[in-house]
Parts: sequence; structure tokens; C-alpha cells
Amino acid sequence: MTKRRSRVSEAVIRRLPKYYRYIYEMKDNGVQRVSSNELGQKMGLTASQIRQDFNCFGGFGQQGYGYNVPELCGEIKKIIGLNRQYNMIVVGAGNLGQALANYSGFEKEGFNIKALFDINPRLLGMSIRGIDILDIDTMKSYTANNPIDIGVICTPKEKAQEVAELLVDCGIKNIWNFAPVDVVLPDDVVVENVHLSDSLYILCYRMATNS
Amino acid sequence: MTKRRSRVSEAVIRRLPKYYRYIYEMKDNGVQRVSSNELGQKMGLTASQIRQDFNCFGGFGQQGYGYNVPELCGEIKKIIGLNRQYNMIVVGAGNLGQALANYSGFEKEGFNIKALFDINPRLLGMSIRGIDILDIDTMKSYTANNPIDIGVICTPKEKAQEVAELLVDCGIKNIWNFAPVDVVLPDDVVVENVHLSDSLYILCYRMATNS
Repeated sequence: MTKRRSRVSEAVIRRLPKYYRYIYEMKDNGVQRVSSNELGQKMGLTASQIRQDFNCFGGFGQQGYGYNVPELCGEIKKIIGLNRQYNMIVVGAGNLGQALANYSGFEKEGFNIKALFDINPRLLGMSIRGIDILDIDTMKSYTANNPIDIGVICTPKEKAQEVAELLVDCGIKNIWNFAPVDVVLPDDVVVENVHLSDSLYILCYRMATNS
Repeated sequence: MTKRRSRVSEAVIRRLPKYYRYIYEMKDNGVQRVSSNELGQKMGLTASQIRQDFNCFGGFGQQGYGYNVPELCGEIKKIIGLNRQYNMIVVGAGNLGQALANYSGFEKEGFNIKALFDINPRLLGMSIRGIDILDIDTMKSYTANNPIDIGVICTPKEKAQEVAELLVDCGIKNIWNFAPVDVVLPDDVVVENVHLSDSLYILCYRMATNS
């Protein structure tokens, strides 16, 4: 299974969350069955693209029937890995770190922020929705006692590399990085970036070429 | 120019902000000159990839010299459209909307949040770093008097489509959407999505296939 998955292309992986979003919503609306044609129309993809994508994971449809929506939803949920809980810590308790901690939506999907870490003495001892802001110097002992799956970097870019290395040092191999910089880490560490300004720049570029 | 740009592939466009980030930092560090080989090594791209990408915009290098860093930085800045100011409004003054308004980094690059809009009576009349939270019902008259380039959607997903249509109705043709849903708008509207949960799902998927 792992072997097959490792051959899945980047483009297909990038589409997985979108599949999940659309199919989850159909399931939520009580839809029982969908053809690759209908799904394609909704998602702006061709039917053959969808069949090809799903074939990367073994394929789920039945010729002449299409897809059973609740089943398909469950399968994609499992493929993404949303059938379990994840413990996260957020490093950097500024605006963005606090906004993430305040947002309860991730929790509902199994992503639990257990603590925030910062260096700012004014923030230490505070808590957000019951989530404590702790001194970054205590991260090692904290993570030794609390298993953490994902480290979230919400620091300024100057601190991001150092924080990323500290997270790895604490045994955290999965990093969600919001700092506008590409952190360099060992190959066995998974890094997913949310570069907000990159996204804004792309919007600008499109704006200029669109007008 | 517009014609040439319109043929630039999605992948090249997606790399533009990364080029800008790396080259801006080199410029900031006083680097005067860089070869496509050196730049490629830093960025994890091949030299020929970099030359190809830059050729989409007319090419900037000189055979045997490489790239003049300050010049290249200025060119990419212009291509992205960062040589001007943008006025933005944020719809949805919850955690994320407030975090964006609190963040001064975008301003430094010419992106000015002029107002936030919400429907929550408890938020109306408040302001964040001097940016007022206004009633969404006043958006039409506000935008009639204040030219706005970019509308930012920070509402729950259930409201995103409606808000997107309202923004377009107010003459705003560039949308930065943080709601976890794909809004459907006329073809001449530019939409750039930041789907945080999509990014988290991709991290999960990689985590599962990595272990």
C-alpha cells in the first residue's frame, strides 16, 4: 500500500483535499450516488481525470453505477488520514498563532492544538480557549511528556529555521509552516507550507495580466 | 506584453513568488550577482529550469555573467505587480480577519487593508490597528466612495459564495478567499484561494505515506 501511494503524483495529491471537500458536502446533503461525469462537472475536472485519479488508490467506482457517495467519502477520508486524531503544538503566539488556536474548526476534524509556545514574556502564562502559551525553552520537556504529531510554525521568518530544527529535535517530524520562508530539514521530515504572501503575489500577477 | 504573459504556464506563475522571495533576500544581503546554477542550488531547481522560467518573461541574464541581483529583483517585482499600492477590504472580522488586519507585514509591501466588514453587531464600531469594522450592509456605499482592488473573504464557508457575489457586485474583481470552499464567479474575476484545511490534509496524507 505504501509503495503504491508513493508513486501518486504531486498533482493528484494536491487534488485529494478538494475531492474530500466536494464529496463530504454531497454526503452531508444526503446524496447517495454520483457518476464521474457529475462529479467532474461540479469540480471543473473531466470524468476521465477523476477516474484516473481514483485509480491511483485502487479505484472505487462500479461500471454503470458510479460512486457510492458515503463509501467514497469514507475511503478518501482514510486515504488522507482523517480517521484518527492528531496532536499539534503552535510555535509563535502572535496574531496568526492565536487565530489558529481560537479557531475550533480543525478540532472537529481531529486536529487538536495542545499548547502554544512563544518567547515573549508578556504572553507566557496566558491561555487561548484553554490552550496554554508556554515558554519555548520548555518545549523539549513538554514534548517528552506529551506526544505531538504536528508542529505549526507561526513565527516571523527570521526565527522559522531555528524553530523548525527545534521541533525536529523534539521528535516532531511533521511541520506546518506559515512563515514566509522555506525551511531546510532532513528528508524524513514532512513540511507543508502556507505562504500567505506567495498567494497574494499570485493574485497580483493575475490581476495585472487580467486587466 | 499581456499576450505573452497569458501564455505563461500555471507552474511558472506558482514559482514567481518563490523567485521573488529568494532574490529579494539576496539583494537584501547585498549580493550583486548570481548565476542560474547558484540560484538553482538555493531554490532546489535546475539551472535550465530557471533559465526557461525567466525566458517566459523575456529573460534577464547575460551569457557568462549570470543575473544582476538588484535588477532581477526589480524586474520580478514589476512582473508580479508589487511596484504599486493595493487597497483591500476584509469581509468577516472573526479570528482570521482580525489576524490579517493586525498583521502589518502586507502593508509594507503595498497591501493596505482599508476596512473590515461583518454582520455581527458586537463587532461593529470596533477597530483594529485603526481599521474600522463596518456593517456589511454599508459595503456598497463604502466601495462607491473608496476604490478597492482586492476583497478578502474570511467568513465561514456557508457565507463565502454570497459574500463573493456581493464583492463582485461592488465592482471588486480580485478575490483572496480563505473560506474552505470554491466560490463560483464570472470568468473575469480573479480568485486566489488559501484553503488552510486543504494544506493540513496534504500534510496528513504525506505523514501517512512517509511513516
